[in-house]
Amino acid sequence: MVKYAILGFGTVGGGLAEVMAEQREKLAAAAGDELELAYILVRRDLPDSPWRDKLVRDFSIIENDPSVAVVAEVMGGATAAYEYSRRAILAGKSVVSSNKELVAAHGLELAALAREHNVSYLFEGSVGGGIPLLRPLCRCLAANRIDEVYGILNGTTNYILTAMEAQGQSFAEALKKAQELGYAEADPTADVEGIDACRKTAILADLSFGANMDPMKIPTTGITAVAPVDMELARALGYAVKLLGRAARAPGGCCAFVEPHLIPQEHTLASISGVMNACAVRGSAVGEVIFCGPGAGRRPTASAVAADIADAVRHRGDPMIPDLGSPGGVLAPERELVSPWYVRLESSPGEIHQLFPEARPIYGSTRECGFITRPLSRTELEPLAAGIGGRAFWRVLA
Amino acid sequence: MVKYAILGFGTVGGGLAEVMAEQREKLAAAAGDELELAYILVRRDLPDSPWRDKLVRDFSIIENDPSVAVVAEVMGGATAAYEYSRRAILAGKSVVSSNKELVAAHGLELAALAREHNVSYLFEGSVGGGIPLLRPLCRCLAANRIDEVYGILNGTTNYILTAMEAQGQSFAEALKKAQELGYAEADPTADVEGIDACRKTAILADLSFGANMDPMKIPTTGITAVAPVDMELARALGYAVKLLGRAARAPGGCCAFVEPHLIPQEHTLASISGVMNACAVRGSAVGEVIFCGPGAGRRPTASAVAADIADAVRHRGDPMIPDLGSPGGVLAPERELVSPWYVRLESSPGEIHQLFPEARPIYGSTRECGFITRPLSRTELEPLAAGIGGRAFWRVLA
Repeated sequence: MVKYAILGFGTVGGGLAEVMAEQREKLAAAAGDELELAYILVRRDLPDSPWRDKLVRDFSIIENDPSVAVVAEVMGGATAAYEYSRRAILAGKSVVSSNKELVAAHGLELAALAREHNVSYLFEGSVGGGIPLLRPLCRCLAANRIDEVYGILNGTTNYILTAMEAQGQSFAEALKKAQELGYAEADPTADVEGIDACRKTAILADLSFGANMDPMKIPTTGITAVAPVDMELARALGYAVKLLGRAARAPGGCCAFVEPHLIPQEHTLASISGVMNACAVRGSAVGEVIFCGPGAGRRPTASAVAADIADAVRHRGDPMIPDLGSPGGVLAPERELVSPWYVRLESSPGEIHQLFPEARPIYGSTRECGFITRPLSRTELEPLAAGIGGRAFWRVLA
Repeated sequence: MVKYAILGFGTVGGGLAEVMAEQREKLAAAAGDELELAYILVRRDLPDSPWRDKLVRDFSIIENDPSVAVVAEVMGGATAAYEYSRRAILAGKSVVSSNKELVAAHGLELAALAREHNVSYLFEGSVGGGIPLLRPLCRCLAANRIDEVYGILNGTTNYILTAMEAQGQSFAEALKKAQELGYAEADPTADVEGIDACRKTAILADLSFGANMDPMKIPTTGITAVAPVDMELARALGYAVKLLGRAARAPGGCCAFVEPHLIPQEHTLASISGVMNACAVRGSAVGEVIFCGPGAGRRPTASAVAADIADAVRHRGDPMIPDLGSPGGVLAPERELVSPWYVRLESSPGEIHQLFPEARPIYGSTRECGFITRPLSRTELEPLAAGIGGRAFWRVLA
């Protein structure tokens, strides 16, 4: 019998305690041992909680209990969560986490520390929520050189874009509705500005290309500038608008960025609606595989964290530590990547046909027009788009 | 350094030798040890092969070499492949396989034998080809009671259906084209009659519901009766026609079947075209996740088998053996499962509106008509459909 502790009793922590109890037997089979919840670290007393006899407010109780073999960090943030993860590893405990902020910022350091102390450090829930993604990427695709990963990595923004498309809402209207439904936070910045997707893109890049990326350096554009007319024009052109995090192999590192894209309507990613996420992986042997499912939420994320707990127990003595690459990965300039672009402008001046002879502009109900360019780099596109007063331009997934 | 052998040097065997050589370093990291190809079992001499110094024609050479720790069975069939798998396990070697026929028929017995001899028995490549599917199902979703698995599990039939839909071809024309392109075999029976999808459905059911299924008892209908007019009517009704293998939890076992389905055009599975496969899994914690990618082919299948080799090596002494359930699983009657149905008939007699007041029939270019029913069991549907001369009726994925 092996004991574990949960740090944080918010949405995911509550779901985790629940799921671990529900599937006790199946998880024991996967772990090769019975799993027992020893402690839940909370910030305040919860005298009426069914878990009240497990609640502690002092991390050192967990840290100093040698019978606790695994700590599940589901607090969020990168300060206390970082400190406790560090101390847990130093105390010889495996750490599993769903905290993308922490993994993107300090995962490399925590993984090295885990290696040194011969314990596991796993974070399946940090990208794609409940979707099995990191373990398939690292283990099931071990026979592949990974060439590209790209996906819809944030459920809040996908919910907003889906609502804008289906109901013709403005960004502000769709955001308000998402907040009412609990799909967006009171301060939605990290989601709508692409910061959350950027952290997940950094983790995927780290695991895929052998070079650890600083998420602060990944060019990131959110969805605040997406207008209803973009939805209308994209649909008429045969595309859906999705916020993609993308990372591709480049010399000495990778090229990574987050921005709205136009995706062909027949592409699997175009079928991903609402708070669902999906991630495509291109590998040298397999070609392309796509993983889809709920990218966040109480029980889906708990599903991922619980599997990590079982795997950490299964691999005591032969720890599981995904390879987050070498420090100081070089970020290749996104702007030189060639792709077709969607360009939207107020009206259709004659210059379009001089600068973009391939353009077949179409008109939306607001009299603005949009078209798809030939393949160009951003450097090539920008002066052309400026020359015709382009108001928005995003890459098109070919 | 750990040695492995490949049994069979056809499409997958050749791809496997290639992929193992290409990703030597990455696979060694995943396995925790260097991997060395010791033998390839072939049926005839291949003096010009670059692998000629590895080729053997006598399995007992492999069997009797104690330095071979893992055997990759990629021969196909259930006779020699079964015998060699058995003998390899008895000789203390882990066995990995992409052979769905063998796994569906004898997997349970081979898994029990592997358990007895403390070696791994893995078969990721047997369902979904290169798509990471079985390991995610068994390990990443260990915190879930699996409630349903369903998917497009055969690339040949999906290629044919896609061609029929996109180019208006008949089944016979699309099959001929698939044979020319190497996507269908000279004798296409196992694919077009749904037998291959049935074997994969059995394996998914075994892993999901704790009860081992006899694939011979799973009701199976292929795609030979799908007509161009079905494609036309389905599209007009807002659906795509796909061959699905489905298995759902039922008391004491599961309900499993293979047959053509109508799938809403906005569903992710409707976006799966050509030889691609996709499998959805519904779990009690995660909700629904979908895995998509190449369901067959030289390098994709090799990608799956190679990862199994690495995992078998990584887990020497603590073997990986997916749980194929208990023998004698009860198959619940598919016919009692309630769903909407697609019905196609020659013309639209007045009786439609008496028997199916919910029907909104539409007409195809051949004057045949089709409509979608209210949710019914097959038992309820059959007399109604017979009453109006229904020519085809398939379930609609709700």
